[in-house]
Amino acid sequence: MGALAAAKPPTIDRSAILGAVTRTIIHGGTVVNASDSAIADVLVDGERIVAVGRNLAVDTDSDITIDATGCLVIPGGVDVHTHMQREQSSADDHESGTLAAVWGGTTTIVDMATQNFGESLGQGLERWHAGAQASHADFGFHMIVREVTAAVLAELPALAAAGVPSFKLFMADSGGRYMVSDADLFRAMGAAAECGAMIMVHAENGGVIDVLIQRALAEGRTAPINHALTRPTTAEGEAAHRAIALAELAGTPLYIVHLSSSDALAAVREARNRGLPVFAETCPHYLLLDTSDLDAPDFGGAKYVCSPPLRGERDRADLWNGLRTDDLQVVSTDHCPWCFTPDKARGRDDFSLIPNGLPGVEDRLSLLWHYGVTAGHITPERFVDLVASAPARLFGLFPRKGTISPGSDADIVVFDPEAERTLAAATMKSRIDYSPYEGRMVRGAPRTVLLRGRTLRDGDVLVQATATGRYLKRSSAGGTAPPA
Amino acid sequence: MGALAAAKPPTIDRSAILGAVTRTIIHGGTVVNASDSAIADVLVDGERIVAVGRNLAVDTDSDITIDATGCLVIPGGVDVHTHMQREQSSADDHESGTLAAVWGGTTTIVDMATQNFGESLGQGLERWHAGAQASHADFGFHMIVREVTAAVLAELPALAAAGVPSFKLFMADSGGRYMVSDADLFRAMGAAAECGAMIMVHAENGGVIDVLIQRALAEGRTAPINHALTRPTTAEGEAAHRAIALAELAGTPLYIVHLSSSDALAAVREARNRGLPVFAETCPHYLLLDTSDLDAPDFGGAKYVCSPPLRGERDRADLWNGLRTDDLQVVSTDHCPWCFTPDKARGRDDFSLIPNGLPGVEDRLSLLWHYGVTAGHITPERFVDLVASAPARLFGLFPRKGTISPGSDADIVVFDPEAERTLAAATMKSRIDYSPYEGRMVRGAPRTVLLRGRTLRDGDVLVQATATGRYLKRSSAGGTAPPA
Amino acid sequence: MGALAAAKPPTIDRSAILGAVTRTIIHGGTVVNASDSAIADVLVDGERIVAVGRNLAVDTDSDITIDATGCLVIPGGVDVHTHMQREQSSADDHESGTLAAVWGGTTTIVDMATQNFGESLGQGLERWHAGAQASHADFGFHMIVREVTAAVLAELPALAAAGVPSFKLFMADSGGRYMVSDADLFRAMGAAAECGAMIMVHAENGGVIDVLIQRALAEGRTAPINHALTRPTTAEGEAAHRAIALAELAGTPLYIVHLSSSDALAAVREARNRGLPVFAETCPHYLLLDTSDLDAPDFGGAKYVCSPPLRGERDRADLWNGLRTDDLQVVSTDHCPWCFTPDKARGRDDFSLIPNGLPGVEDRLSLLWHYGVTAGHITPERFVDLVASAPARLFGLFPRKGTISPGSDADIVVFDPEAERTLAAATMKSRIDYSPYEGRMVRGAPRTVLLRGRTLRDGDVLVQATATGRYLKRSSAGGTAPPA
Amino acid sequence: MGALAAAKPPTIDRSAILGAVTRTIIHGGTVVNASDSAIADVLVDGERIVAVGRNLAVDTDSDITIDATGCLVIPGGVDVHTHMQREQSSADDHESGTLAAVWGGTTTIVDMATQNFGESLGQGLERWHAGAQASHADFGFHMIVREVTAAVLAELPALAAAGVPSFKLFMADSGGRYMVSDADLFRAMGAAAECGAMIMVHAENGGVIDVLIQRALAEGRTAPINHALTRPTTAEGEAAHRAIALAELAGTPLYIVHLSSSDALAAVREARNRGLPVFAETCPHYLLLDTSDLDAPDFGGAKYVCSPPLRGERDRADLWNGLRTDDLQVVSTDHCPWCFTPDKARGRDDFSLIPNGLPGVEDRLSLLWHYGVTAGHITPERFVDLVASAPARLFGLFPRKGTISPGSDADIVVFDPEAERTLAAATMKSRIDYSPYEGRMVRGAPRTVLLRGRTLRDGDVLVQATATGRYLKRSSAGGTAPPA
Repeated sequence: MGALAAAKPPTIDRSAILGAVTRTIIHGGTVVNASDSAIADVLVDGERIVAVGRNLAVDTDSDITIDATGCLVIPGGVDVHTHMQREQSSADDHESGTLAAVWGGTTTIVDMATQNFGESLGQGLERWHAGAQASHADFGFHMIVREVTAAVLAELPALAAAGVPSFKLFMADSGGRYMVSDADLFRAMGAAAECGAMIMVHAENGGVIDVLIQRALAEGRTAPINHALTRPTTAEGEAAHRAIALAELAGTPLYIVHLSSSDALAAVREARNRGLPVFAETCPHYLLLDTSDLDAPDFGGAKYVCSPPLRGERDRADLWNGLRTDDLQVVSTDHCPWCFTPDKARGRDDFSLIPNGLPGVEDRLSLLWHYGVTAGHITPERFVDLVASAPARLFGLFPRKGTISPGSDADIVVFDPEAERTLAAATMKSRIDYSPYEGRMVRGAPRTVLLRGRTLRDGDVLVQATATGRYLKRSSAGGTAPPA
Repeated sequence: MGALAAAKPPTIDRSAILGAVTRTIIHGGTVVNASDSAIADVLVDGERIVAVGRNLAVDTDSDITIDATGCLVIPGGVDVHTHMQREQSSADDHESGTLAAVWGGTTTIVDMATQNFGESLGQGLERWHAGAQASHADFGFHMIVREVTAAVLAELPALAAAGVPSFKLFMADSGGRYMVSDADLFRAMGAAAECGAMIMVHAENGGVIDVLIQRALAEGRTAPINHALTRPTTAEGEAAHRAIALAELAGTPLYIVHLSSSDALAAVREARNRGLPVFAETCPHYLLLDTSDLDAPDFGGAKYVCSPPLRGERDRADLWNGLRTDDLQVVSTDHCPWCFTPDKARGRDDFSLIPNGLPGVEDRLSLLWHYGVTAGHITPERFVDLVASAPARLFGLFPRKGTISPGSDADIVVFDPEAERTLAAATMKSRIDYSPYEGRMVRGAPRTVLLRGRTLRDGDVLVQATATGRYLKRSSAGGTAPPA
Repeated sequence: MGALAAAKPPTIDRSAILGAVTRTIIHGGTVVNASDSAIADVLVDGERIVAVGRNLAVDTDSDITIDATGCLVIPGGVDVHTHMQREQSSADDHESGTLAAVWGGTTTIVDMATQNFGESLGQGLERWHAGAQASHADFGFHMIVREVTAAVLAELPALAAAGVPSFKLFMADSGGRYMVSDADLFRAMGAAAECGAMIMVHAENGGVIDVLIQRALAEGRTAPINHALTRPTTAEGEAAHRAIALAELAGTPLYIVHLSSSDALAAVREARNRGLPVFAETCPHYLLLDTSDLDAPDFGGAKYVCSPPLRGERDRADLWNGLRTDDLQVVSTDHCPWCFTPDKARGRDDFSLIPNGLPGVEDRLSLLWHYGVTAGHITPERFVDLVASAPARLFGLFPRKGTISPGSDADIVVFDPEAERTLAAATMKSRIDYSPYEGRMVRGAPRTVLLRGRTLRDGDVLVQATATGRYLKRSSAGGTAPPA
Repeated sequence: MGALAAAKPPTIDRSAILGAVTRTIIHGGTVVNASDSAIADVLVDGERIVAVGRNLAVDTDSDITIDATGCLVIPGGVDVHTHMQREQSSADDHESGTLAAVWGGTTTIVDMATQNFGESLGQGLERWHAGAQASHADFGFHMIVREVTAAVLAELPALAAAGVPSFKLFMADSGGRYMVSDADLFRAMGAAAECGAMIMVHAENGGVIDVLIQRALAEGRTAPINHALTRPTTAEGEAAHRAIALAELAGTPLYIVHLSSSDALAAVREARNRGLPVFAETCPHYLLLDTSDLDAPDFGGAKYVCSPPLRGERDRADLWNGLRTDDLQVVSTDHCPWCFTPDKARGRDDFSLIPNGLPGVEDRLSLLWHYGVTAGHITPERFVDLVASAPARLFGLFPRKGTISPGSDADIVVFDPEAERTLAAATMKSRIDYSPYEGRMVRGAPRTVLLRGRTLRDGDVLVQATATGRYLKRSSAGGTAPPA
């Protein structure tokens, strides 16, 4: 049974599950969407939700009935910031990473397909399509642009048309060579504006950070804590402000990934107050962890090395406030797990060699429920918005994904708000060898997970071991299209 | 047929309407809620919505079927700021005012019950209950507090328990003696905080305005335009800032009614950025009309006298931006109609004697759709949020009102986004003798209006002439309760 | 010798001092003005400075020579906020209070003449003129307006013409009945604008404070600390913001007295950033003391009761920053001393009965030098600006007072920046029976003090025991007039 | 007599001027310093001011007497931003440029010595010393850093010690290759912080601008107006914000040259509000000219091409406000004149080839007096501060330069506030062939100009044709040192 204390026993008659899925009723739960909660049954026909209503279970024939009494019925999570390809993150590949995702209630990911130096965006995307065949979750892609050439800029419309209308660029390096110049960032923004695409940025001032890293190493400061000390919040706030200025000039919507600090949040807030199409996500680790974690003994701080780094108490309080005020719209994970041994260990004598990244995709919903909803920071509806509806909407997947609504894909999580479990690497589906939250007890966990009408997880049983994820050709980011 | 150009013919078999309502299907429309749109049928059983789904019309027996093809299916409008009792506004009483409301797609109002000097809040409320028996719309009350005594403060918990958990106070007079001192406002806030009630304020600095009015009259400036000149935006911004400071000290949520200016919006935005529970509404006339309207010839400016006064171009642009950024959460009307003859004429020689107030309840949805959604300022979902979901939520009526969701009251508007009509006093249900928007063509109009499952309006026919509105005992303002 | 450790012996040949003053040379010091420092001699002829230059001592015949080697030669201090009449403060009257002033290097005060209820401003001013005949310092008056009637407003031009072009009003009570309504404040501002006068405000929200005091007393919270707890910074920030809004509408310059908090400073800063004529002073006690002082044992906290109350650490840091950035222009004292016994003791059972006020005029220069200049917050030039030049300029006394310049009054302090002394009530000229700074060692003290060419203090000797202060008929506040 | 209408005839007995200067009296004028005005005589002995006082003319023997009755006596202007070496600007060299300067009342310049690619800072500085031997004004240098290498960084302390403690770097190109990366800018800031030097930046985002220029040219937009259109204010505001962030991280004072826009001013103001050592200058052309000037017919717009470009009305209003609020501390010229023919003509077919720069040094005082003081934006004292005292103070020349004070250099301008003249290229000392202000009538002009006690100009006569300027070894920028 592991760490999951199942407060309510699963009630699916599994004999029916593996057959041809036709009609499923989820009854007795409280359906929670971004703006509404209602006690209602959900009727699924094939891959789609067809009705939400009272007593549908009574009126309707169905092949499978799932009892959700005492539970919430929420749309499957949408994590729009993951790195699932081994080139990027050594612990998980698409197969293990998305298994962790669906196990944790996230049925859709948008992964960061990456251009290598010398190749076209199309070539990078092709490799990602190949890798993602093993995906348990439905998946889309953003495209990371490392080289901004005329040829690359000319590719943007084709990628957008192929369902990848969002491009990520780096204003700093982050465990690899990614940083682009302002001129190149601005060029990419201009090209994105022309084809209605979104620009995403890693907002830190790379020039400042490089100098600070060199200075730290020259002074013999090599421990993990120096990772945080060489990436000050001012350098993040500056870059966020700059990215916004460039996007305003280019007339393109902007999405700031993994925002971590009060300084950067202030820049986003100022822009949004003016009505600019500027958006930002934060991640669970920025809400829950702290610079001081980088000082953990025995090189343990390396487990907490990511960029931007973990911040301080005021930053965390401001991020929670930003989730409430909608200055932050999304909680994603930047899932990019590196095993402590051997990966993180590569930086034992030089913090700048520690691979950047933390796991996150598996526990996102539980963590945000426990520390967000239970702790009183956000409502259940806001929780659903942050982990599913808003990311789907911003990235052209709504209302296909991100809502319990007639016509939407039947990606559904029966979420038990009272289930308690202790977080531990040993019980995770991810291949990571540590958890940043090891030993924490959290309340609130997925009990049943459906992807397009098919049950993947039921209680502590993985019902569907074969990957069934499909590619999601996304419409223009930022827009909302009616379901087909 | 009048001004309504019915793009799609009504399809209700009216023979069934007046009987005992049992089951109704609204099929073929696009259901629009605050966060979602879906092509779906809506099944109503008795007074409640029971299901939203695909092809419900096929699967379900129903007594009445409404064809909503090509139309939107939206929750009935909720107008949380009206003055329907003749003591307050001479043109409409509860009967005519709420008929205007439901005709225009607003099925719920929260009216401003008013304490007279020398009486208890309870006595004022009792008079309002008596008057509201004639209401076509479902109705709740806020309570206007004019005298803050120890006895009055002691009444607050009882009123909150009786379903009136929101109290309005004035920081300036407004066509009558209402202004309270800061000490009294702060006392009321303290008492409200203790019983979980919301404080609402008319935010203008009455001291400044009184001096400016006296000065204008002493200088012989008596025309309607002086109404605007003696109520500068700085006086509104100041009062909004002050109300927020007092509410922050008292620990009470604050709702600023009829916010009209950039200055006041800036104060609200700053508070909301800090995460304070501060809310604000604006009204269609502040979005669409202008100080210059007060200069209309032949004393015509009197038609546009309300407080705060109509403002300038920058204010209007900022208000639209505020609706987008959620610094403004609600569009209400402050419906308070006075006939041009004889009411407004009382101030022909002295602008300060012109009764304050504009009509609004009847055309709120059409105006905000036409000038908001069609003009590209807001999405259909945001429209629904502003006119129905958010006001219901803020004032303890959600999800009973304000959403198309199983278990919610079947208050439903079939809204034809293409219907064109010309606004005119002559065709209004309100008894007002002018329209501030006379002669404007707007696109988008209610076609069918249901209140708790009962059709009140069908096309240009008033199906239900008898008032069927019921009192709404509201839960704590600001909160969200699950439907029973 | 007392507490003064005279690092440099006085060198005046006193035999000449008491005779007819003709020509005095102060040589060898560093003349410090608001924008300049220069090693130079100062030549005084009669009551005026006539020259500042190198080696004047060599070239010029003089009756008296003062050796200022190693010392600063600064303009006599100007304290524009004192309460020297017994009606206001029981410990000092004009005689003792101004003796304390000149002893501490302040040769000019602007005292708060006060209107009693029922009397005209002129009558109040007359009483003040009578009392001030005993003044050792030159003196001007502001007029405190307690009743704003048409007759009082009509008096403003006459008072301005008589040299009193600045009027103080209260937005809260402060140990007496002073608070005026917004309407009255705004009326006074309008009248002041017409005659070019300055409005000064005590900026706290009196309504809020009254309620909080009543609540505290009702709850049995009677100790001095409750004085601070019932006057929160938000109530000061609110009032400052409101006063600025009213002054902006009235078109009058505004001066906020004894600003104590970050909240109020933020309001002033915002106004000044916009270029409004808004000014503010703080006092040494807000820079140096703390809310926690109000918790001193044995009712000792009563010694620290003043309004606004002492604040916290962040406020103090922000005030120092405001002095640097010129968001605060003046350091005055609000000198209003009440003896601990019997005055302060009146509030032993009820903090609201503790007389409001702290002594300050005697040690202002030493405290600001020690904690400001020596501690590195401000430069010597800024010190001179804050204690002499800026207050003189803002209140129509410049360049007659506030600068070492040809044609200016020879009000000169030879200030020894190295002299150390321990602050103690026992050695003060004021009649107060305690010092808020008892036992603190400060470095920097006046050594010689001249008023209009006449030496009042020389080292630890009071040379001039007879009061020689004269009335200063001030020109329009805020302006700068050339010396006659 | 030319364009100068001498309201008051010069009164110097010139026979004495050319001999050995010993003692000069300037009598009867009003001495204006940054914080004071006084009717006083000024006594000069040799190269220094020795006294300022009443009736010095009576008491003192002097060789020369200058009658300043009706005039102001102000410190010689200090222009801390000029480009006088032909490598930089083709119209003027040190000889003609500084002749223009002293003729216009500016007796001190700090010129922009420039490093060429491949050379050390020292080599660049040496060339500048050689060129500046021909200077009529006293002169210091800033050093422009184009290449930031380890060797260059190592040179900073030596340059600071040699009197050049301020280094300018470019965040954008400006008519040449200057732009450095953020990493290099941050490195230079770090090195400057260590030796107490000031960093100066040209704050525009060069990456954005390069892209916009390329786009304009690709679209065939080649006229001068495109210079402004390709350098938007957002790109300046962004760079100012970034420079401030980097300086805050480096702990170095920052000076933003030629600030031109509201956007950049907002960034500076925010930093100064926080108490950061951030400073900025603007130039007369940003205060007086307009983007529309770039649209002048017949390629005339080329005369107005400088970087940042001329801006709009709101920017100008905000700059004037910034001069009042001290968010801008200095008015310098960025004097960098290019003749219309042949220099500016080089860009006739491509705006990006138009040499950047406007003349300014000759008319700075007249323009700022006329449009600043006469127009009521600033006081005479603030005028002196902006053109002389503040720049001297910020760049380590105060009080040797920038004040009329005993011990200071006798750099004195007798300024006739009533003299009227019409600006015209034909009557200028500069070799430029046009004036941006051609034909404007201004009131207020230098009448007599002294450099270190020696009269250079007297009325319309150039008394001293031979260059007598001396190198000024500056102390640490930002500091104030007492005169020797």
